[in-house]
Amino acid sequence: MGSSGPQDVASRSKDIQALSHPLDPLSVSEILSAVSVVRQHHGNVDFNTVTLLEPPKSRLLKWIAQPKDENLPQRQADVVAIDRDGKVFDGHVDLTTGKIVSWEHTEDVQPLLTLEDLGGVEEALRKDAGVIEQCRLVGVNDMSKVYCDAWAIGYDERYGTEHRLQQALMYYRPHIDDTQYTYPLDFCPIFDARAKKVIHIDIPDVRRPVNTAPPTNYHIPAIEAEGGFRKDLKALEITQPDGVSFDIRGRTVTWQNWSIHVGFNHREGIVLSDISFFDKDQDGGKLRSLFYRLSLAEMVVPYGHPGFPHHRKHAFDLGEYGAGYLTNPLTLGCDCKGAIHYMDAHFVTKAGSTSTVRNAICIHEEDNGILFKHTDFRDGSTLTTRARKLIISQIFTAGNYEYCIYWIFHQDGTIQLEVRLTGILSTYAMYAGEETGGWGTEVYPGVHAHNHQHLFCLRIDPQLDGQNNTVFQVDAVPSPAAVGSAENYYGNAFYAQKTKLETPLQAMCNYDGATSRTWEIVNENKLNPYSHKPVGFKLVSREVPGLLPKKGSLVWKRAGFARHDIHVTKYQDGQHFPAGRHVPQMSGDKDEGLPKWIAQDPHADVTDTDVVLWHTFGVTHFAAPEDYPLMPAEPMTLLLRPRNFFKRNPALDVVPSYGKAPSQIAAGVKGTDHHDKCSVEV
Amino acid sequence: MGSSGPQDVASRSKDIQALSHPLDPLSVSEILSAVSVVRQHHGNVDFNTVTLLEPPKSRLLKWIAQPKDENLPQRQADVVAIDRDGKVFDGHVDLTTGKIVSWEHTEDVQPLLTLEDLGGVEEALRKDAGVIEQCRLVGVNDMSKVYCDAWAIGYDERYGTEHRLQQALMYYRPHIDDTQYTYPLDFCPIFDARAKKVIHIDIPDVRRPVNTAPPTNYHIPAIEAEGGFRKDLKALEITQPDGVSFDIRGRTVTWQNWSIHVGFNHREGIVLSDISFFDKDQDGGKLRSLFYRLSLAEMVVPYGHPGFPHHRKHAFDLGEYGAGYLTNPLTLGCDCKGAIHYMDAHFVTKAGSTSTVRNAICIHEEDNGILFKHTDFRDGSTLTTRARKLIISQIFTAGNYEYCIYWIFHQDGTIQLEVRLTGILSTYAMYAGEETGGWGTEVYPGVHAHNHQHLFCLRIDPQLDGQNNTVFQVDAVPSPAAVGSAENYYGNAFYAQKTKLETPLQAMCNYDGATSRTWEIVNENKLNPYSHKPVGFKLVSREVPGLLPKKGSLVWKRAGFARHDIHVTKYQDGQHFPAGRHVPQMSGDKDEGLPKWIAQDPHADVTDTDVVLWHTFGVTHFAAPEDYPLMPAEPMTLLLRPRNFFKRNPALDVVPSYGKAPSQIAAGVKGTDHHDKCSVEV
Repeated sequence: MGSSGPQDVASRSKDIQALSHPLDPLSVSEILSAVSVVRQHHGNVDFNTVTLLEPPKSRLLKWIAQPKDENLPQRQADVVAIDRDGKVFDGHVDLTTGKIVSWEHTEDVQPLLTLEDLGGVEEALRKDAGVIEQCRLVGVNDMSKVYCDAWAIGYDERYGTEHRLQQALMYYRPHIDDTQYTYPLDFCPIFDARAKKVIHIDIPDVRRPVNTAPPTNYHIPAIEAEGGFRKDLKALEITQPDGVSFDIRGRTVTWQNWSIHVGFNHREGIVLSDISFFDKDQDGGKLRSLFYRLSLAEMVVPYGHPGFPHHRKHAFDLGEYGAGYLTNPLTLGCDCKGAIHYMDAHFVTKAGSTSTVRNAICIHEEDNGILFKHTDFRDGSTLTTRARKLIISQIFTAGNYEYCIYWIFHQDGTIQLEVRLTGILSTYAMYAGEETGGWGTEVYPGVHAHNHQHLFCLRIDPQLDGQNNTVFQVDAVPSPAAVGSAENYYGNAFYAQKTKLETPLQAMCNYDGATSRTWEIVNENKLNPYSHKPVGFKLVSREVPGLLPKKGSLVWKRAGFARHDIHVTKYQDGQHFPAGRHVPQMSGDKDEGLPKWIAQDPHADVTDTDVVLWHTFGVTHFAAPEDYPLMPAEPMTLLLRPRNFFKRNPALDVVPSYGKAPSQIAAGVKGTDHHDKCSVEV
Repeated sequence: MGSSGPQDVASRSKDIQALSHPLDPLSVSEILSAVSVVRQHHGNVDFNTVTLLEPPKSRLLKWIAQPKDENLPQRQADVVAIDRDGKVFDGHVDLTTGKIVSWEHTEDVQPLLTLEDLGGVEEALRKDAGVIEQCRLVGVNDMSKVYCDAWAIGYDERYGTEHRLQQALMYYRPHIDDTQYTYPLDFCPIFDARAKKVIHIDIPDVRRPVNTAPPTNYHIPAIEAEGGFRKDLKALEITQPDGVSFDIRGRTVTWQNWSIHVGFNHREGIVLSDISFFDKDQDGGKLRSLFYRLSLAEMVVPYGHPGFPHHRKHAFDLGEYGAGYLTNPLTLGCDCKGAIHYMDAHFVTKAGSTSTVRNAICIHEEDNGILFKHTDFRDGSTLTTRARKLIISQIFTAGNYEYCIYWIFHQDGTIQLEVRLTGILSTYAMYAGEETGGWGTEVYPGVHAHNHQHLFCLRIDPQLDGQNNTVFQVDAVPSPAAVGSAENYYGNAFYAQKTKLETPLQAMCNYDGATSRTWEIVNENKLNPYSHKPVGFKLVSREVPGLLPKKGSLVWKRAGFARHDIHVTKYQDGQHFPAGRHVPQMSGDKDEGLPKWIAQDPHADVTDTDVVLWHTFGVTHFAAPEDYPLMPAEPMTLLLRPRNFFKRNPALDVVPSYGKAPSQIAAGVKGTDHHDKCSVEV
């Protein structure tokens, strides 16, 4: 990794390209090959998942250190299949040898629900006599206007995991273009996906006839019918006449000293791995490793209405459906501006063929305002440099709701994760005069949007200058010394109190707004030569509401990862999913995922070793009428910022938009003026 | 304000234009006219401030309701002057009648320091024998290479307010282009601005010879000398071929249903007033008042090193210098892209003439990604609408540091305040082997950057559908009922707990990250017809570190506004500056500004009345080497979001970039496709 210039990054990726990266998602032919091997040995199963089994880290690190053919880990597929009796099998297939590496019947689980699983429910319900009867009772007779959002059932203690179940949230549309969430129906059929029939209907004690309010819509014909679109927004065009500034070889993106492998799977969606940064100030120029792997690993959306059966509404959108399976083809809808590089995503189908989401991942640049600026008041000498950012994004639709995920890379070494929430509120019916009781908001006449949270679990697998890292909790606190004391005479002293997170048990902790708490991941073996502090990255996350469902509640039991805002574990291959591998219909009575791994060795030493930091963040949403019928995007963000990692601001060599040094001012010459004439005065 | 279309906003502003707005800053001729009146009556004083005296709210509201000539409040100037004996006078001048309305000698105060006050110190110090001697003692002999940042002294109990003082933070530059903050000198002269001489030098017990480390620089010649700028960033152009989408008449900007008066003064910088929003869903179309006035009203930057005399470093950048006086001319440096409308700022000079900062305010639009999106998984019917935002911004330089202030207006009714911190760290010297003691970071060999905070006070003067507003604290909390109880059987219940802030005393409260605390400003007299909740705006602010200097400390005494994150007061004309009118050298021994006003009637009823909400937010900064020599911009942001204010998402009529309704999908037609072809696939 030598001592040459930034070209190194590109040339290294060129080698990688020649080999293809071990973390590339399975290709269409690899998926089909895995299917063929499974069919050969295990007959006519339905496929739930065929995805890359990531190689053991020890193998991959060998390849990263020396990307040569002989170091290339063998490609394996991770398979979940369901046989004709509903038995679930977890297996690994070696794609090089064409052999089954493992194949096990897993009892008492239900794998995630694919769009194929969810798709057929609506049609079946329209023909179900019980459902037809319930529709009639609330005033709906035309079954072609009845719709349902099929959800994972969460957990229903009456049924456990034996049947593969879905709960059907029922709606009505007066017209096909009407927002169905304005017309929720008050009953909830439970559908058995294997038997393909309704096994029960949950009917409330007090009935709620279908809403009679007029539609409130957002589609183009509706806006045109009420007077049309505003005409006073003029064009704003973003163009990149010379093309993009990034380079992509295989799936490795290099840009502004960054090097990032862009993976993708059915469950987490975008997975970023092998993230490194070319530091020209280190050993005459060095590509330094930052993160082995970053992903959104899970999420849960608990609803806060205590009434039955609303408690079952606590979707694990990754574990129960998959952020990859739900991802939008960005061919529909122009979701980013400028010059875009897209990547497709390939999945197995139930029948063992493949489906492709075109333009699943969007990679593009954006201007980001001022990167840094200073003016000397003495002489007006100034430097102004504009920032560019690289954005790797996807959007996934979970039934009513849209999650826009932006992984943003900055020139100063910061990684930002931005999530925007949009889409439509999930709603419930109201009877005339019904009040919300504070558990939700009437966002439109007769439309009850329950309080809910969106809690995401970010999985951070760091490798800051190597695998041996440590996590510290950092609190901004006043000096303990009293005002007037010798140590703090004027009372202004404050400092960063650092607490080393030493064991998984001790590391289970929460955000503290009062101390502006952050967390630093550091490599204690390597000190910054100036600050003498260990090289590190700081997690700055301020949208950390915590899990509001109480300790011991159904959600608390099932979403173990959300019991604390921070967890630290020792890295183990395969520990990717903090709510467990198979999430639907788990009761939570026994721990899965993160709490289970921690319980296995709660006192393990997680200092100066290969650690994983799990961070749960998100928002609590008390809806309002302005969120309806289609919700303006609600943004939330967090940062991973280099601290004591670099010897100086690593972006000083970005071309300024304007600069004049004091000597140039003094000499009265125009000097070197990089002014990019980017603005027009009007 | 009738029932016609959005044109109403523009036509109303047209009337305003004909009249000019009572909140327009003083023009050059008005400033000169005030000076002339003062000179006539009070002779040859030095001018510190000549700014608009804002008319009483009751007068202005009359004019806003009916913008006619006879309602136009008379123009008055608010003047601060210092006579030849150093006496401070506060006065008001009527610009219509040319009369002095009031003129008072104010004892025991020092008005803010202008750039003229600060400018001469460096040259004087270079000639001071004591300073020359101290320079020699730390190894500096060439006085032409000695620099100082003159700061307000904060408060020094040895000198009180009698003398007009500055503390000189001393630096050395080996070469004129070198970053002086790499070479801090260890002593601190105290300069008397009236006597124009050094009255004392604070000298540390242990001396710190001037740093011998090589320079670390950021100006263009330095980067070119070390190999030049990176060449791999390609052009990204933002153009608006049809011009901007906003309209400016006088200083009132109308854009996407917003109407905003853009004021500016020497102290707060940008002041936004008379902010309203055209709601087409209200009474067939109505311009609804939102905020009477929004501004950054004060800030304090306490440094956390307990050593003498570092406690004096706690700059009030607004109250001691003025965000207007310090503002950058945006002619230097291209600080925004696209089509920009600039406004100049005019100030009085000490001698009674005027100075102008060209392009002090920047008004422009930016693309803002996805405004909303939804895809129906059934048929792929989709609506994607992109967002535009309007940004009213300024950048001010406080000595070593830059504050970039962005007031951002969104189409969904959200107002966002974003602050970016950049510039250069204020530093102190170190001796060989000195350790920071945790009170700062050695960001470069021999350069000690002390821990510090940036705390801003946002003044929010709401008028949500009228003057009578109330503030609630809102906490997201679990139901008190136990898991397993009838009221909360599954334990998932949670709700928004609202606490009415009834008196200024009770309203003194802090952020609570554990409950995702927000604050709602509401008009209890007007309920949203759907949610039955009062119309309101929610303050969502997550960067709320609190004041770390302890209760009773010097900073705590002087920065009363920062003792709590939230204060609510009953509106009173003239209560603009929460740290008091004259901030320099106040001891804090008696309360000024916010705490004083509250103490006058701590139990006043602040419900359903004309209230002002004061919010202190900011960051705590533990510096790192990557912040040096020029700090990458550190962003922070807060939102004022409409809640229960509108009947629905008010931006549904923004032209989508792509949309196809279910009926259009079903009909197999392309339908109305507004696709704006804004992206290019590469």
